[in-house]
Amino acid sequence: MAGKEKRQKIVIVGGVACGPKAAARARRRDPEAEIIIFERGRYISYAGCGLPYYLAGAVKVLDGLMTTSSGDLRDPEFFHAVKDVTVRTGMLVEAVDPAQKQVRVKNLQSGESETVAYDQLVLATGASPVVPPFPGADLKNVFTLRRPEDAQGLLQLIEAGEADRVTIIGAGRIGLEVADAFGAQAVETTMVEMADQVLPGMVDPDVARYVANVLREEKVALRLLERVKEIRGDGEGKVAKVITDRGEIEADAVLVAVGVKPNVELARSAGLKLGETGAIAVDEFMRTDDPNIFAGGDCVEVLHRISGRKVYAPLGSTANRQGRVIGDNLTAGREKFDGIVGTSVLRTLGINLARTGITEAEARNLGFQPVVGIAPSVDRSHYMAGGRPILVKILADAGSGRVLGAQVVGPGDVVRRVDVIATALRFGATVDDLGALDLCYAPPFATAIEAVAHAGNIVRNQRSGLAEVVTAAQARELLAQDQAVWLDLRNPKEIESQKFGDERVVRIPLPELRRRSQELPKDKEIICVCQIGVRAYEACRILKGQGFSRVKFLEGGVSWWSRVSA
Amino acid sequence: MAGKEKRQKIVIVGGVACGPKAAARARRRDPEAEIIIFERGRYISYAGCGLPYYLAGAVKVLDGLMTTSSGDLRDPEFFHAVKDVTVRTGMLVEAVDPAQKQVRVKNLQSGESETVAYDQLVLATGASPVVPPFPGADLKNVFTLRRPEDAQGLLQLIEAGEADRVTIIGAGRIGLEVADAFGAQAVETTMVEMADQVLPGMVDPDVARYVANVLREEKVALRLLERVKEIRGDGEGKVAKVITDRGEIEADAVLVAVGVKPNVELARSAGLKLGETGAIAVDEFMRTDDPNIFAGGDCVEVLHRISGRKVYAPLGSTANRQGRVIGDNLTAGREKFDGIVGTSVLRTLGINLARTGITEAEARNLGFQPVVGIAPSVDRSHYMAGGRPILVKILADAGSGRVLGAQVVGPGDVVRRVDVIATALRFGATVDDLGALDLCYAPPFATAIEAVAHAGNIVRNQRSGLAEVVTAAQARELLAQDQAVWLDLRNPKEIESQKFGDERVVRIPLPELRRRSQELPKDKEIICVCQIGVRAYEACRILKGQGFSRVKFLEGGVSWWSRVSA
Repeated sequence: MAGKEKRQKIVIVGGVACGPKAAARARRRDPEAEIIIFERGRYISYAGCGLPYYLAGAVKVLDGLMTTSSGDLRDPEFFHAVKDVTVRTGMLVEAVDPAQKQVRVKNLQSGESETVAYDQLVLATGASPVVPPFPGADLKNVFTLRRPEDAQGLLQLIEAGEADRVTIIGAGRIGLEVADAFGAQAVETTMVEMADQVLPGMVDPDVARYVANVLREEKVALRLLERVKEIRGDGEGKVAKVITDRGEIEADAVLVAVGVKPNVELARSAGLKLGETGAIAVDEFMRTDDPNIFAGGDCVEVLHRISGRKVYAPLGSTANRQGRVIGDNLTAGREKFDGIVGTSVLRTLGINLARTGITEAEARNLGFQPVVGIAPSVDRSHYMAGGRPILVKILADAGSGRVLGAQVVGPGDVVRRVDVIATALRFGATVDDLGALDLCYAPPFATAIEAVAHAGNIVRNQRSGLAEVVTAAQARELLAQDQAVWLDLRNPKEIESQKFGDERVVRIPLPELRRRSQELPKDKEIICVCQIGVRAYEACRILKGQGFSRVKFLEGGVSWWSRVSA
Repeated sequence: MAGKEKRQKIVIVGGVACGPKAAARARRRDPEAEIIIFERGRYISYAGCGLPYYLAGAVKVLDGLMTTSSGDLRDPEFFHAVKDVTVRTGMLVEAVDPAQKQVRVKNLQSGESETVAYDQLVLATGASPVVPPFPGADLKNVFTLRRPEDAQGLLQLIEAGEADRVTIIGAGRIGLEVADAFGAQAVETTMVEMADQVLPGMVDPDVARYVANVLREEKVALRLLERVKEIRGDGEGKVAKVITDRGEIEADAVLVAVGVKPNVELARSAGLKLGETGAIAVDEFMRTDDPNIFAGGDCVEVLHRISGRKVYAPLGSTANRQGRVIGDNLTAGREKFDGIVGTSVLRTLGINLARTGITEAEARNLGFQPVVGIAPSVDRSHYMAGGRPILVKILADAGSGRVLGAQVVGPGDVVRRVDVIATALRFGATVDDLGALDLCYAPPFATAIEAVAHAGNIVRNQRSGLAEVVTAAQARELLAQDQAVWLDLRNPKEIESQKFGDERVVRIPLPELRRRSQELPKDKEIICVCQIGVRAYEACRILKGQGFSRVKFLEGGVSWWSRVSA
């Protein structure tokens, strides 16, 4: 058309999450552009995060992961008809030529290659499961869980009764979600993790012990600090055993779930800059160091707003947000993706676990001095039926009071609490802010002092010197050295229902403490303990008021101690 | 003791929420102070917010509302033993003498008065139900719901079979919570409200219509725009009928739930400053205009951080926060209570409703130009079983993009979404911030693009000119004037399951729109509609791209329309 610019051609490599989102957004803003998506696999636009739930039977039809909420299958025809976007599956983009602005694409079925020009290119090449190079990794019935086909194959095996015993290698997020699915399918599950905790890097050791205890209670054989050396076959090419540095595990199938790595080969070979994490480096506009090439989703690194560092944190929700930003910037927008705060959540074996921000170890590494607030709580007012326990752990910097992160675990509603903290983290909230939040309150939904505010207040009390806490580990050490005595403030019924400590524990119900405090030794540290920490804190204040100088309380009380002890 | 200041005497008037909290906090910080609470009623430290749930049978024992989570009854003995706080119930503080720093207290049982000196005084006098002066308000079986005794009396009547038909006067929060309780108790319920909507001042008319529809479906006879003139007795002093300006309602009992008013008589007679709302005025330290007198809880007004105005918004959670602040400042602290954002939540008849910030009407009154984003959603990924619908409505200022408020309603988890927005409101978030939040994502908990982010994006699309919406009211008007035509983008199955519009609706499933758009009239406005608004928005973009200039879409789609139509 005279006077009109030629329509631009947008080529997108990768058709799962970020790619299709970028395409759809670009189309909404630019009706003229030619948009083409190349996807190497068979399926596009599927919810990979849903695969563990398909295994569990909670997603009945695999197609459900590929349909819109109104039931339309998001296949190439759909993209063509609705979005005027061309999707070509089974097409592997082999090379990018940034100078010529073209890609070489191979048809995986025919083996033929073609060259396609672009004005702007989007790399949404995703990630691949890491499979360590141990012998036997290529045996039959060794799975990873990334594509719909993986889930289908594994589920068929289980349903055929050919996978009664499965070993999961890796106790990360996927491993735990699948352990949950296996629980639902009555599969005998062993989990092998080379680190000394589950969810390494994701949660602190104490929260990890909580999860490990749940796994063991639910009959998952958890083996920590154990390294897989080999997967051994049955002589007919099928998995028979997993050999580790500490023993052997009989197995009908193996799921390798030790993490994913970004697919960066294409970017690397095109000379694009990779970041310190090994994933593709992009600026805040999701642009690579080539101004005509964007990248997003599981192949890029992102800014962690709390640590200030670049991290590799692939997640479907992040990929979608990035796709929207890319779609804007492909079409003359100036939209920023300004980072993450490290939020994630999983469900496993009757508990929910969510986290945001950074862990204690990360905080120390970054030079923060973390103060911890642990609040065992219930997700509604205690007098309402149906409340479920949650344990809230928050982390703040001692100096500034800035909130650094949170981990919340338990059968109850953990997501709401972490979403609140994740929101607060975006704005650089302090623990004072947490205490001042105006959150929903009514008895079916929350306690009058919400768990998040309560945890924040625990940190505030420590920062102001009002509360002195000991961790479970510190308490154990003091007691082992005979330098301290436990003071259990609970009532006899509680003590009966949940034992704590040995015969040396002094037991004085809180209401009797003021008049019975002379029963306590003066020459030892007194470590107060109750069910969740509230009465123990109160007891500290009482004893301090009565002149006892060496008084502390156990963070999180028996509720926490009983779940995080190894 | 030599060299030591004399211990201070703190007198607290009111023993329900703020008062006991202030006492407990002050004690933790100051072991020496003499602390005394005067409470006129029989009970102290009870969860008044739990009374509707006691009526519903969800709280089995009334004592539950007065116990700690570890089962200790919070009675005067408990406060004495644990907190070294003296609580005297049945004691009415009649007068304050700020000059002499003393109060006159009357023993309601003996009728005797005494004078008690204070160094610092806390007024936590609470609120009382408003009972309009209609004839018959003093009949037997006319209730309010404020104190445990109220709930006990009403429940006994219901359980005795003497209150099969109850009229609730007032469709506010308490009225709706009690309607829920009555639903559980199979009480025939009529609700009379003089305003033109339920929850006046709390939610917008559209959200109110949603709730009204639920009430009617659940067989609550809702009568709006109807004013009670009289409660008429049966000749023996018991309720028989409620007489309104529009008719009569037979009733065995009446609950008056038209709101509460702050108890300010004591403050007023002491010459303390009241605020523009009529409640006690306090500064950010919760101090009245007398430096030795604090006030908090349901008797004070607070700063609304979004409107910038003082409001009267009594709530148990706020009272607790204020009590903590007062406890700090009673003991040489400099703690601030910096306001609320107007968050509240209720459950009624199978739905949850939460709100925060300001309403559309308030926004307009304050000079904002509100843009609305309505996102019908599900509280987990659509392919997961067990997801429950929620409708998210957010409000932002057109000029600045600043979020002003939100209302979320439906059977699903509304609290999490409103808590996130309430948190964001504290920090002056914009809709861009909502879109950028890093919230928990996993299929059992959320959609990959969270409902809050989605609603925020709808506003962003409007602000950027990409999306043009019409409200249900606007659409109705355009259609009535024959200036517009509906374009229903849903598929036949959806159309079958939820009818929409008359024979003039053009029906083209979205995937067919690009090739069938010539079927649409060029001379009329086209109002696109689908189930939740996503496809209709897509359709607008398609049609705009094809040169149609007058295209809009119905906000919230059929899901919203079907619930908010009168």
